[in-house]
Amino acid sequence: MNPATATAPGATGTGLAAADRATLIHPTLPAHRTDRTVLVSGSGCRVTDAAGREYLDASAVLGVTQVGHGRAELARAAAEQMTRLEYFHTWGTVTNDRAVELATRLAGLAPGGLRRTYFTSGGAEGNEIALRMARLHHHRRGEPQRTWILARTMGYHGIGYGSGGVSGFPVYHTGFGPSMPDVHFLTPPHPYRRELFSGADVTEFCLAELRESIERIGPERIAAMIGEPVMGGIGAVVPPADYWPRVAELLRSYGILLILDEVVTGYGRTGHWFAAEHVGVVPDILVTAKGLTSGYLPHGAVLVSDEVADTVTGEQGFPVGYTYTGHPTACAVALANLDIIEREGLAANAAAVGAHLKDGLTRLLDLPVVAEVRGVGLMLAVELTSDKEARRPLPQGTTEVADALREQAGIILRTNPYALVINPPLVFTRQDAGLLVDGLRSVLSRVGLDGHVR
Amino acid sequence: MNPATATAPGATGTGLAAADRATLIHPTLPAHRTDRTVLVSGSGCRVTDAAGREYLDASAVLGVTQVGHGRAELARAAAEQMTRLEYFHTWGTVTNDRAVELATRLAGLAPGGLRRTYFTSGGAEGNEIALRMARLHHHRRGEPQRTWILARTMGYHGIGYGSGGVSGFPVYHTGFGPSMPDVHFLTPPHPYRRELFSGADVTEFCLAELRESIERIGPERIAAMIGEPVMGGIGAVVPPADYWPRVAELLRSYGILLILDEVVTGYGRTGHWFAAEHVGVVPDILVTAKGLTSGYLPHGAVLVSDEVADTVTGEQGFPVGYTYTGHPTACAVALANLDIIEREGLAANAAAVGAHLKDGLTRLLDLPVVAEVRGVGLMLAVELTSDKEARRPLPQGTTEVADALREQAGIILRTNPYALVINPPLVFTRQDAGLLVDGLRSVLSRVGLDGHVR
Repeated sequence: MNPATATAPGATGTGLAAADRATLIHPTLPAHRTDRTVLVSGSGCRVTDAAGREYLDASAVLGVTQVGHGRAELARAAAEQMTRLEYFHTWGTVTNDRAVELATRLAGLAPGGLRRTYFTSGGAEGNEIALRMARLHHHRRGEPQRTWILARTMGYHGIGYGSGGVSGFPVYHTGFGPSMPDVHFLTPPHPYRRELFSGADVTEFCLAELRESIERIGPERIAAMIGEPVMGGIGAVVPPADYWPRVAELLRSYGILLILDEVVTGYGRTGHWFAAEHVGVVPDILVTAKGLTSGYLPHGAVLVSDEVADTVTGEQGFPVGYTYTGHPTACAVALANLDIIEREGLAANAAAVGAHLKDGLTRLLDLPVVAEVRGVGLMLAVELTSDKEARRPLPQGTTEVADALREQAGIILRTNPYALVINPPLVFTRQDAGLLVDGLRSVLSRVGLDGHVR
Repeated sequence: MNPATATAPGATGTGLAAADRATLIHPTLPAHRTDRTVLVSGSGCRVTDAAGREYLDASAVLGVTQVGHGRAELARAAAEQMTRLEYFHTWGTVTNDRAVELATRLAGLAPGGLRRTYFTSGGAEGNEIALRMARLHHHRRGEPQRTWILARTMGYHGIGYGSGGVSGFPVYHTGFGPSMPDVHFLTPPHPYRRELFSGADVTEFCLAELRESIERIGPERIAAMIGEPVMGGIGAVVPPADYWPRVAELLRSYGILLILDEVVTGYGRTGHWFAAEHVGVVPDILVTAKGLTSGYLPHGAVLVSDEVADTVTGEQGFPVGYTYTGHPTACAVALANLDIIEREGLAANAAAVGAHLKDGLTRLLDLPVVAEVRGVGLMLAVELTSDKEARRPLPQGTTEVADALREQAGIILRTNPYALVINPPLVFTRQDAGLLVDGLRSVLSRVGLDGHVR
């Protein structure tokens, strides 16, 4: 029971890597990989490992770090609040000043009418709550049979059994099931994947499928549709401009709620406070997390319309709560983080630097393996291919490319099997953009159509 | 979009309460309640509201705040780490020094052999992961049909669709369903509720039911059983001493994994580092959160046996991860928090002051409404009744009693419909215990058998 009896990590990266292998379970780490990149510090858009090597963080970790790494202002906000009232909940009649201030602030930022906030500790928790609210809303209005949720293949909403249940990737289901039932998956509005639409217009295809699905399941059995306004998991997929307005209109005509998952897109990433503004709809429930605190500590906020909030808080109230709902330190850090986003004009910077970066990335289309550059603001993706005509993905996936980018070019970004995902901190500069494009070219120009880096 | 256009909370409690009502969704808040207790500061076992009134926190918020409120040491740990590397994930081959140090520390503290850690941001997330790991473990070992989870009525594991799915209270299901399928609920080992056992010995009844349930479902279809070693949701229910060893033995004989949910009981609360030591079993997966950071920021750790860790990290690795897994600031605060628990001997204090407090509470049994005092360490409960012989709960529940305790005696504690739940910070003193017992007597002596406070 004495911690000294456990393997003590050495001061070096090597010692830490060995201790890591002995104790830490990593997501998505193949068993054969024993190498580790041990990060120890960060500042702005740069992070540094235990060997002193610096990397350009073109991922904002996981699309989180809007204001960049190592902001003393947020550390101070956290420490001050922790010394005053580090934590209490907001269950029942208990509340705290920081939670109220943040809820008030969010009511002023949220798209039209979403004035009511339920606090969580992250995006998956937020989506679980959104699903619960949608079903409870109908249940309390006398339609308890409205339990079905419409979602989209390639949509990502988290890894709880509800949030994962509506996530449309087989990897979140195989070996883990059964997940939450009553979920129906729709085709994602992903123009690059033209084979999904049988030659039809993307929006026309998706709308026809949505209408048919609703009629087949029965509109009186459907609670809500959940979707990311710009799809993040599959890599910055921006739907055609008429997709969301027409989807929202159709759902409304059937009394089906719309849940927008803005866990990645919220708080400036697309060049607006929320991507709902970009795609031109106001959902019934809008789920946010990540950028709310820039990840300095875990926190999230579910923004809810008055109509839904009134039903789910009626009677004996909304019956379920997370331990950390309304966490004062998380709220204090969020307030300071929103101050920075506002003061430094980071949504506008995301729009301007994002457009500049997208231009630079577009010039990579001359490379044989670069199939498409897409996205909005600082939510961008580079689709890789072994065959531009057939739009086939690289046979090996993108892991070797990502490793080469990190090891050879000092660039950290996210990947999925098809694309490089570029979600840098919103303090990203034109200079950073230039370095990123140069680094990408230096590696991608050496990637063969077999997916290997020469 | 200007936050200034939203209702600005005033500096006073009244202004904050009005802003709260306009914006914040509280769990478990009946619609008719418009009063608010606006907490603004805390120190040790005391919290203070916006009107300057001080309360004794006999709840540690929700069984979280092991080291008490307002610890400057934890604020410093958070601020230092936030300035150095506030956050990065531990997906793939990436790691960080703080995550490795904490995982190493936990490997030294955990009960026998649970050397591998998967980090989360809280207890519900941890239980979702534990359920996923249990199913994936069997799936990868060639038994994909092992999907069923055994749980217990009145067990509480969180409000995700998996963690809530295995929580045995109707309130987490009604209006929210369907939840994760393939869950079977067993009778909880709750001796006070003698009607559950038809006159039989509690353990004998539960073991017979467990064996019959396994045979009926088919052992080859069951992945795991999940349970709190000491049940928290229903109020500090300690099972008979032979319950857990015999349950664990039976499960093992059928190849069924045991998940212990130590979200409340972990990190000293029962007088041991983990309640697994108290009940004398080593589970395959042990879920912790709350006390790991004393709630200074959201964090959790799932402790896993080598056998399960090896299967779930095999092949392409464990395929799902939370954004904040391995969060360096959360890990740094956890390390500093464990330092305090160790240095100040808080597990031993929980045992000593808990025994003293339990003695004091036991003297309340002379009151007509006090039916039972139970628990271990600083995890205690006072069961209330309108009829000691029939063991009937108070007809109005316990809300009015809790309100009176807060308003008239300055005591904050948790309640469920049947019991007052007493989980103070582990820095609770004998003096605090005396004040708590006196406050309880002053209110409980005025509670009628109709449940109203005179």
